[in-house]
Amino acid sequence: MTTIDPLALSCPVPIPEGARVTLGHGSGGQLSGALMRDVLAPCLAQASPGGPLNDAAVLDLGGTQVAFTTDSFVVSPVVFPGGDIAELAVNGTINDLAMMGAQPAGLSLAFVIEEGLTLEDLGALTASAARAAAKAGTSIVTGDTKVVGRGAADQLFVNTAGVGVVPAGVQLGADRARPGDVILLSGPIGLHGVAIMSVREGLEFEAEIASDTQPLNRLVAAMLAVEPGIKVLRDPTRGGLASALNEIAETSRVGMVLDDAAVPIPDAVRGACEMLGLDPYHVANEGKLVAVVPADSADRVLDAMRALPEGEGAVRIGAVVADHPGMVTAKTLVGSERIVDMLVGEQLPRIC
Amino acid sequence: MTTIDPLALSCPVPIPEGARVTLGHGSGGQLSGALMRDVLAPCLAQASPGGPLNDAAVLDLGGTQVAFTTDSFVVSPVVFPGGDIAELAVNGTINDLAMMGAQPAGLSLAFVIEEGLTLEDLGALTASAARAAAKAGTSIVTGDTKVVGRGAADQLFVNTAGVGVVPAGVQLGADRARPGDVILLSGPIGLHGVAIMSVREGLEFEAEIASDTQPLNRLVAAMLAVEPGIKVLRDPTRGGLASALNEIAETSRVGMVLDDAAVPIPDAVRGACEMLGLDPYHVANEGKLVAVVPADSADRVLDAMRALPEGEGAVRIGAVVADHPGMVTAKTLVGSERIVDMLVGEQLPRIC
Repeated sequence: MTTIDPLALSCPVPIPEGARVTLGHGSGGQLSGALMRDVLAPCLAQASPGGPLNDAAVLDLGGTQVAFTTDSFVVSPVVFPGGDIAELAVNGTINDLAMMGAQPAGLSLAFVIEEGLTLEDLGALTASAARAAAKAGTSIVTGDTKVVGRGAADQLFVNTAGVGVVPAGVQLGADRARPGDVILLSGPIGLHGVAIMSVREGLEFEAEIASDTQPLNRLVAAMLAVEPGIKVLRDPTRGGLASALNEIAETSRVGMVLDDAAVPIPDAVRGACEMLGLDPYHVANEGKLVAVVPADSADRVLDAMRALPEGEGAVRIGAVVADHPGMVTAKTLVGSERIVDMLVGEQLPRIC
Repeated sequence: MTTIDPLALSCPVPIPEGARVTLGHGSGGQLSGALMRDVLAPCLAQASPGGPLNDAAVLDLGGTQVAFTTDSFVVSPVVFPGGDIAELAVNGTINDLAMMGAQPAGLSLAFVIEEGLTLEDLGALTASAARAAAKAGTSIVTGDTKVVGRGAADQLFVNTAGVGVVPAGVQLGADRARPGDVILLSGPIGLHGVAIMSVREGLEFEAEIASDTQPLNRLVAAMLAVEPGIKVLRDPTRGGLASALNEIAETSRVGMVLDDAAVPIPDAVRGACEMLGLDPYHVANEGKLVAVVPADSADRVLDAMRALPEGEGAVRIGAVVADHPGMVTAKTLVGSERIVDMLVGEQLPRIC
């Protein structure tokens, strides 16, 4: 690892000498947030229309509100119980658009391939991406392929970006939660993270755990149809439910109080987390969303969610409060109260 | 390198057993074309609005024609004479939008970082991306950061995607060249490729060769202002001038005849190519464009190009003909005629 020629480029932000990127910076937790806040955002030196804490930017293009998002995927292994890197990438980008209220209008697909991948595997993953896009009612409209030598990348990295139109009247944002709002969750948490851990760490469970990767755009459309005034949508991916809620609480300067008993955690997820010493609220999900909705429409939104397979396990998990702004707490199963903190450092590298 | 579980995924296209991705598949030449034609396009199994041979897709979003494109960058080294991977990525995406006639409205920036990169280097490259965007009148509006372990990636890979509005009345496409049209080139070729080779192969030249990476959106706006009916624009990146023109000739089912004497090749590029046994027409450029324009407006377009620094070396290099459809030929310096073929295999891996 050589250092970049300091004559050619310089970093405009004071950074401790010798500080290096660690796996924890990719975790979606506190270190990821610090990297964005202390290095990336100041180096970009500009107001970002979408803001670093929304899942997508929204641009006005000729009077049309267009959501635009990107994600790179480095999950290992590239095929895992319940999905693969290409399907995960397509669903992830569709979901980032959906969290801004947009239906996908087209996706890009860019591969960085390690020399030696079989064409059959590349073809199979490409077809998986196309199927995932079609399942969500969209398609891959542009792409790119790069190849690097053996050892310069690990099999395959995938980037997907996407665009979609935000319907008139919909205005979602991590800064819009207000005391009195209700927090909804679309179903059981922790399945993607535990599925990846099970293959990576060789864990065996009584029932097979499969990733929950799935597109959420239809669920979001159904929710907005009954309540266009939903405040915040967020898919709790890297960093899990805890990071997603903490980011919303911090951006909106509100507190949140969860009810641990209400949060659905599959037995296998709970068991794996106990074995590995993890908090299920920190485990990544790839097909779930949390919503902050006005209290008076919460039941209608819940009913709309439960009417679709991707929302059949939807529940109310807590409320937004004026107390302790920027902090998320939970009523525990034994009746006490605890702080729900963001993940610190790295739980499992390359989970998405 | 393990093979993907065949039970989980299958490739819908017949592929020779054991065929693997090689560095040549990333060259932008014939092998890249074959990969797209024989594997990626059939596996995507759908009509692509932009088509695999345009630089960007054009989508109708609420009545606005939006160009949308993506590229991943794996150039090594990440800082090179005349530029760096982040600036290259930003310019590359701006140029892909420009080749569809669009001004950039917003870019995404996604990093795959090898654990251990210094935060100072990461900050410097991020700032370089922001500067490049600002120089072209746009900004980074959304992004993503992933970290992989040491040895799982080589320092840093960058993906940029972008969106931009295609002005009403502009309709550019690789299928629109017609016999009688004139072929223009915005300036000297080969500088990016030779700059990368010079650092990678340790070549010394009398004068330092710097990459030509630069944004072309203002040049394109000036060209379209004098002739909205320009037929094709293409930036001859990987695979060089030869690949760009061959793709246009093939897609439009026309022939092309170039005049070798008219194509500006800097002495250092010619010298490096002679030393390394390369055809300068195959060497990558990152700040040049070729244009296919109606004959009667060619002089006006040339004048508009020459009025800007990024087009000051613009020249007429040939014409579109009805003969030998799909083939590009050149009148050589000694008066004979030769076939200008696409690059076969790999010239230099990781040039962009």
